[in-house]
Amino acid sequence: MAGKQAPTSNRSGTRSNHDAESLLAVAVEVFNRRGYDGTSMAEVARAAGITKSTIYHHFSGKEQILRVAVSRALDGLFSVLDERGAKTGPADQRLRHVVVSTALTLTRELPYVTLLLRVRGNTPTEVWAMDRRREFDRLVAGMVDAAAAARGGGPAVDPRLATRLIFGMVNSITEWYRPDRGEDSGQVAEAVAVIALEGLWGKDGGIGAELQARLRDAPSSPSAARQRGIS
Amino acid sequence: MAGKQAPTSNRSGTRSNHDAESLLAVAVEVFNRRGYDGTSMAEVARAAGITKSTIYHHFSGKEQILRVAVSRALDGLFSVLDERGAKTGPADQRLRHVVVSTALTLTRELPYVTLLLRVRGNTPTEVWAMDRRREFDRLVAGMVDAAAAARGGGPAVDPRLATRLIFGMVNSITEWYRPDRGEDSGQVAEAVAVIALEGLWGKDGGIGAELQARLRDAPSSPSAARQRGIS
Repeated sequence: MAGKQAPTSNRSGTRSNHDAESLLAVAVEVFNRRGYDGTSMAEVARAAGITKSTIYHHFSGKEQILRVAVSRALDGLFSVLDERGAKTGPADQRLRHVVVSTALTLTRELPYVTLLLRVRGNTPTEVWAMDRRREFDRLVAGMVDAAAAARGGGPAVDPRLATRLIFGMVNSITEWYRPDRGEDSGQVAEAVAVIALEGLWGKDGGIGAELQARLRDAPSSPSAARQRGIS
Repeated sequence: MAGKQAPTSNRSGTRSNHDAESLLAVAVEVFNRRGYDGTSMAEVARAAGITKSTIYHHFSGKEQILRVAVSRALDGLFSVLDERGAKTGPADQRLRHVVVSTALTLTRELPYVTLLLRVRGNTPTEVWAMDRRREFDRLVAGMVDAAAAARGGGPAVDPRLATRLIFGMVNSITEWYRPDRGEDSGQVAEAVAVIALEGLWGKDGGIGAELQARLRDAPSSPSAARQRGIS
């Protein structure tokens, strides 16, 4: 991660939340609440209970705070693609791993990913962050393509469109997920994967263990099958 | 819809985009680009190429512009629930209709829905708009419940969580959809429904015509079925 993030020694001996890490957390909270463009360094200082000059001990300016914050989110997302589950196994299982792990990363780094998703390209750092997001999307779309190719039939939906929609669903978690309400991030991430991928491959792609068992037991008579409610 | 929206006679005889409707469109574009909180009436006037006093011929203030704009989005969303397809037929087909029609409404009223999704509750109008959004979500979650009950087995995912995720996917369309790029809104809306609903009911819920045909033709021998790659 870029920037001066390690807590520095606190010469004035005031509260511990003056270190760079907690200052970053406060700044990101204010950016998310008021908008990055609409937030001044004076407002960040006020929210942190310190002076502007104390902020400048840690960060060169508002733009550097943004860069450090969105770097944390981007580093988290890109590291998903380097995980073992994203690099080994069948293509559709690798894709599933990336969907689940991206959702988990989002819940773990919630304020930072929220900020990343809200930048709009008004400053050089915002443009850089949006480029990095697009690069991530491009790599994941490649995984959808690979999974589609491996399955032969391909997905029921255009891979680029499917990628946008599925990661739109993942990103929408930032709109309502609050860890302090005790919501289970693992359950949320698993729900995303179920909705996204058992739908992605179309009508007969989601066939799982239970249906496979019913298929193995299926009688030869179509009418008997209908009576059992299968067809 | 609330507010003075009908174009008024233009006493100064200047350009036609001074009427309330086009002023609204300009204001919403600026709000979406700069953030509602961060935009002054002076900036709206500058973007519209008119004076602030001309704006006040049409709207009582910034808050009223916001109210008219988000009302348009909310009216569009709530009218989906009154459509014939949302009120007749099997519960899961009603739900599918709402998913598709909500996505279409979003693409049709894109700037207005985008603004609605970005309000954060900093003013009374924003609080009101968020309450209305929650009411819409509550009604749709009820449709998910009804569809789950009608299917007996229920969805593979908790209905409230599924509602949030599916409409998170729908809403995410505002992040990238641009009608002037020739993207087909019908294709996008259909893709959302395919991903959302063929996954929503879990592994054996998405079983469709093709698989039903294969089930009807299924041989009685499990090993033969396996050889054909079904199980």
